[in-house]
Amino acid sequence: MCFHKNHRVITATASILALLLIVQLFLIAPNVAAQMQANSWEEKFRAIPRADLLKEYMRTLSAEPHHLGSAQDKKNAEWMRDKLKSWGLDAQLEEYNVLFPTPKERVLEMIAPEKFIAQLKEPGIAEDPDSTDANQLPTYNAYAADGDVTAPLVYVNYGIPADYEVLEKLGVRVKGKIVIARYGASWRGIKPKVAYEHGAIGCLIYSDPKEDGYYQGDVYPQGPYRNETGVQRGSVMDMPIHPGDPLTPGIGATKDAKRLAREDAKTILKIPVLPISYGDALPLLKRLRGAIVPEAWRGALPITYHIGGNEDVKVHLKLSFNWNQATVYNVIARIAGSTYPDEWIIRGNHHDAWVNGADDPVSGMVALLEEARAFGELLKQGWRPKRTIIFCAWDGEEQGLLGSTEWVEHHAAELTQKAVAYINSDSTGKGTLGMSGSHTLEHFMNDVARAIPDPKGKGTAWEAVRAAREKAATTDEAKRELRERGDLRIGALGSGSDYTAFIDHLGIASLNLGFGGEGGGGIYHSIYDSFAWYTKFSDGDFTHTRALAQAAGTATMRLADADILPFEFTNLAGTIDNYVDDVTRLAAMNNAASGIDLQPLRVAANNLRRNADVYDRALRTAALSGKKLEDVKALNRLLYQSERKLLSDAGLPRRDWFKHQIYAPGFYTGYGVKTLPGVREALEQKNWSEAAAQVMVISKTLDAMSAQIQAAAEKLQVK
Amino acid sequence: MCFHKNHRVITATASILALLLIVQLFLIAPNVAAQMQANSWEEKFRAIPRADLLKEYMRTLSAEPHHLGSAQDKKNAEWMRDKLKSWGLDAQLEEYNVLFPTPKERVLEMIAPEKFIAQLKEPGIAEDPDSTDANQLPTYNAYAADGDVTAPLVYVNYGIPADYEVLEKLGVRVKGKIVIARYGASWRGIKPKVAYEHGAIGCLIYSDPKEDGYYQGDVYPQGPYRNETGVQRGSVMDMPIHPGDPLTPGIGATKDAKRLAREDAKTILKIPVLPISYGDALPLLKRLRGAIVPEAWRGALPITYHIGGNEDVKVHLKLSFNWNQATVYNVIARIAGSTYPDEWIIRGNHHDAWVNGADDPVSGMVALLEEARAFGELLKQGWRPKRTIIFCAWDGEEQGLLGSTEWVEHHAAELTQKAVAYINSDSTGKGTLGMSGSHTLEHFMNDVARAIPDPKGKGTAWEAVRAAREKAATTDEAKRELRERGDLRIGALGSGSDYTAFIDHLGIASLNLGFGGEGGGGIYHSIYDSFAWYTKFSDGDFTHTRALAQAAGTATMRLADADILPFEFTNLAGTIDNYVDDVTRLAAMNNAASGIDLQPLRVAANNLRRNADVYDRALRTAALSGKKLEDVKALNRLLYQSERKLLSDAGLPRRDWFKHQIYAPGFYTGYGVKTLPGVREALEQKNWSEAAAQVMVISKTLDAMSAQIQAAAEKLQVK
Repeated sequence: MCFHKNHRVITATASILALLLIVQLFLIAPNVAAQMQANSWEEKFRAIPRADLLKEYMRTLSAEPHHLGSAQDKKNAEWMRDKLKSWGLDAQLEEYNVLFPTPKERVLEMIAPEKFIAQLKEPGIAEDPDSTDANQLPTYNAYAADGDVTAPLVYVNYGIPADYEVLEKLGVRVKGKIVIARYGASWRGIKPKVAYEHGAIGCLIYSDPKEDGYYQGDVYPQGPYRNETGVQRGSVMDMPIHPGDPLTPGIGATKDAKRLAREDAKTILKIPVLPISYGDALPLLKRLRGAIVPEAWRGALPITYHIGGNEDVKVHLKLSFNWNQATVYNVIARIAGSTYPDEWIIRGNHHDAWVNGADDPVSGMVALLEEARAFGELLKQGWRPKRTIIFCAWDGEEQGLLGSTEWVEHHAAELTQKAVAYINSDSTGKGTLGMSGSHTLEHFMNDVARAIPDPKGKGTAWEAVRAAREKAATTDEAKRELRERGDLRIGALGSGSDYTAFIDHLGIASLNLGFGGEGGGGIYHSIYDSFAWYTKFSDGDFTHTRALAQAAGTATMRLADADILPFEFTNLAGTIDNYVDDVTRLAAMNNAASGIDLQPLRVAANNLRRNADVYDRALRTAALSGKKLEDVKALNRLLYQSERKLLSDAGLPRRDWFKHQIYAPGFYTGYGVKTLPGVREALEQKNWSEAAAQVMVISKTLDAMSAQIQAAAEKLQVK
Repeated sequence: MCFHKNHRVITATASILALLLIVQLFLIAPNVAAQMQANSWEEKFRAIPRADLLKEYMRTLSAEPHHLGSAQDKKNAEWMRDKLKSWGLDAQLEEYNVLFPTPKERVLEMIAPEKFIAQLKEPGIAEDPDSTDANQLPTYNAYAADGDVTAPLVYVNYGIPADYEVLEKLGVRVKGKIVIARYGASWRGIKPKVAYEHGAIGCLIYSDPKEDGYYQGDVYPQGPYRNETGVQRGSVMDMPIHPGDPLTPGIGATKDAKRLAREDAKTILKIPVLPISYGDALPLLKRLRGAIVPEAWRGALPITYHIGGNEDVKVHLKLSFNWNQATVYNVIARIAGSTYPDEWIIRGNHHDAWVNGADDPVSGMVALLEEARAFGELLKQGWRPKRTIIFCAWDGEEQGLLGSTEWVEHHAAELTQKAVAYINSDSTGKGTLGMSGSHTLEHFMNDVARAIPDPKGKGTAWEAVRAAREKAATTDEAKRELRERGDLRIGALGSGSDYTAFIDHLGIASLNLGFGGEGGGGIYHSIYDSFAWYTKFSDGDFTHTRALAQAAGTATMRLADADILPFEFTNLAGTIDNYVDDVTRLAAMNNAASGIDLQPLRVAANNLRRNADVYDRALRTAALSGKKLEDVKALNRLLYQSERKLLSDAGLPRRDWFKHQIYAPGFYTGYGVKTLPGVREALEQKNWSEAAAQVMVISKTLDAMSAQIQAAAEKLQVK
């Protein structure tokens, strides 16, 4: 789906500069010669990825539309499998069968005050040969309902819950009406879901030029931004309930899996939903009457924005879909570990696109391929990773993380035992390295970024990120932290790409990487996400793409070859402290919440911090001793299993597939992460009894993590 | 020109609630019977103005285009003179001869990258019969230079000095180019002046729909806002140098006055300037290339805004004017004072319009007429004002305050002796009462507003203003002040209407009044400022217009009939304290300014406050004594002459016509007021030696005011 290109700069307090040096020392100390060799392999690795090959892979993989279920999708999977094999990896396709609706009929017309028939079509343009390819999926939202509705139209701004509070104050109801929302402020699937909860019978989603068009910059093909015909396709499956095949929640969608009836599937929407261009939206919005919208609701179309909702403007929306099964082709390639073959480092990126997808997902996919080719080279030179490395090219990500979710569900038992970490990417652009993931890997990831040359040619990728964050920092506190804290903060993971099942369902520590923040764009999920666009407006010289391969590959190698796995807990504890502060403030904003005792959370967080410090000191002592650990395997198991302790079996309220108690995609934000979601969302929904209950759930979870860390610290006792 | 409809809410500190009661008590005490009678006249007065007559006057006065020099302009003047006479006032026309250029030729075309010829025309619309009237002045900016230039076009945002700093950072020069600026952020005349200072050879000014069009609301005739053909005409005379006839600075433009040669006139611009609609601006702006503008520079046109400035877009601008003399017809009507005929209360509004001008100026003009009719009624019933009242309907205001300025200059000697105060209005709309003026009249004006029923029918006009300001207040401090300070603050006067010569040139205490803040509009200086527009979208039932007549008439009556003139000084002293704080902060922002000693200003302000308090106590003591003053005439003369003490003979640097040392229109903002202008503008221009010198000038001025107040306090000593 999408890698969030605007890295959030997150603020906090602690400084742990010293730790870095100590741990590096420690990693070297036990077996200096082996480690020197390891470093040398790493350097060899980083020299291998080539811009020209990355470009050629992209040309190949983005040459034709290759969405789930298309002939080209399968061809791309086979091509990658064969490439991986040719590089010496053990590669194969793993298939699943999933529900994938494609449009049978799409009609959008205004019937009053005048007739207007929406185009619902992105025209090809001469400058971009791929834009006229055959077999493009039409513009639509997958997993919207079939429907044929005619009703007044209401403009609902972004269509998030806060917007309906404004509508209520204005006395406007959407019950029985069709809403039109602009993209932005939430994941798209939230908009029709909230509209449905308020009684709407249909939903249009359009790209307003304010956020996604000429207001941002010149439009394609003159510039990189969305033009008036560009449409953002995308899934509206109710993924905050669960991602993956709607008919096989919690289990792999193998041929013989037990399936729900379609009408029982919880993640298929109940109303028709259609994405449209601003060219198609303008004639509708222009005609709306009723109240003039508040200033914050105004976009950049050349009109006075009105709420509408009366009989003046009526639209007819008719959608029907082919509710077919499609085959997911995941490409899975392995390099067996030499010492710990049952400890797996998994690296993934999806390969399916909505159309040609040069940016999303091919730019990230080609980085992964170069990592695999480079590892193949190293294998030929004698390198053997201690742990097993698994490269995954996922299919059906765009529809709802289908390929990764089904694979994770299918292999859940084994993954729970063996998976050390998952490293994801999903498209990459120009700018600086975006890093998010499990905070047990925050310090590790900072170290990796310090080893990657900045693609702009000056210093390291880490330094470039810090410089960009310093430039963007608006408060003195944020600037001070950037100067004084040893590590850059990494963002928490919400949803929106293939790490979701790994971290949220199974508790496998995950990272998500990709360059972004420069150049801008507006071809997301349109036919203009093409080789021509990418090479002209994004990372045309593939320097950033190469740097992504270097970063993700270095992370993979370090995890695969580490003596002691580089999980650490002080950054996690500090971050959780901040989250507890957040929910405390949230509770304080509402008097009614004053009865909720947040003390157990604070106690558990303090306990976590103490244990994190104990582990830290133990690691330092062990490092300085220079002696070999007795049972490093048991220690490592405790370490990589630690993220599992952040799960609760019961899962989150009303969505038990989501088991992680620290991170989850927001029920009403979609991609956007909610941290300590059980408590935070209960407070937001003013469900006080649930908030109180969830305080206990999270506290217990944190205590389990503390116990795990304590056990790991004990394993560090050198005899 | 324009009454600023968005009243500024000004913040401050002191609370003087008690004073109000005491002064009211005092006004009643000396001669309770006479005062009761006065109150009863006031109440009689306020009952007289009629909405139906206001509407009829407007229908008559806005029926045809009536700009300076037009046949209808003279007819309107004569019609008003005759009306005033019929009501029993001594009315006559006073004529001046002024330079008034009208367009001979206007061409604006884009010659590259493609040909486009601008319309430069506002089409008539069926819903508005006046919009198709004959004899409309074309769209143009008066006092722009003749010129025929062809050059690349550069977008300069609002075209104020700060925008050129941004351009310099972007490496864009305007030398030898034509600039296009949007209306807003300054008075229009500043834009070409600053462009010329930077070397531009032509200037276009357009109304961007962000500030003045569909972004604000529905456009005419569907709504009140500016449509794509609407153009804001207006003067670009360099009025911050001096207003009035460019050929007769400082003297009345009588037939035989000594005139400058046109080429020696300082207030005629040096480059061609043309105002255009957003319909005409769009094709030009759309074609601009070069850098994309900063976000704050983006308007609401459906394009990506670029700076331009290269050879891609070239425009041809050709303007020539008929540089003719025109006759100004001021209507001057008098009611002789019974007790103090040589103390004059002057009430004015202009009558000329750019086109039909139902809003600007007729809405204010008709209020003045009803005041005059009401006074005529009272005269018939036996009322005789103690002081002389002069009603003025000014001509040629739109071109540069010509009528009022020439009259003031012509009668300067007599006005300096006799003028007690000037009360201005200039169009009025819906909403709350806007009040600005001399702070010696702040308390007085608050009292007047407390006597006026709110046109919405609840409470007083004063209460409505306070409620609106409380609603708009964004800080706790501002809210607290609104609750605790007895008086609402009134704004300082900048320029933009006919009070300018009175206050800034002669130091006659002035007020400017008008309702506004609701309804919105976008017909300013266009053909759509019509009876149809006003009655549909502005004060269609004329309740606010009537309330303006009540407010301005009550103020006029109270000043005319007061035993002791209601000038007071504590509010002035508090306000000047705030201004001194402002310039102190301004100086502190720049290290280089640290050598400037602002202490003399602070000392003078403190001295002023002490003397204001002394006067205040003396007034209170006199009030409580219940005795008659010995020489009330001498006291009153000291009081109304006090504003003269705020002048400096030498005037402001580089513009000696402006003699007031506390208020002036900004040299680089135009209408916008600069308080303590000598010091403030020198600091802004980083002219440290001038700032230091001006500190002494203002301090001396304040000391003169203190001495005057002290003298007045002495006159209050009851024998």
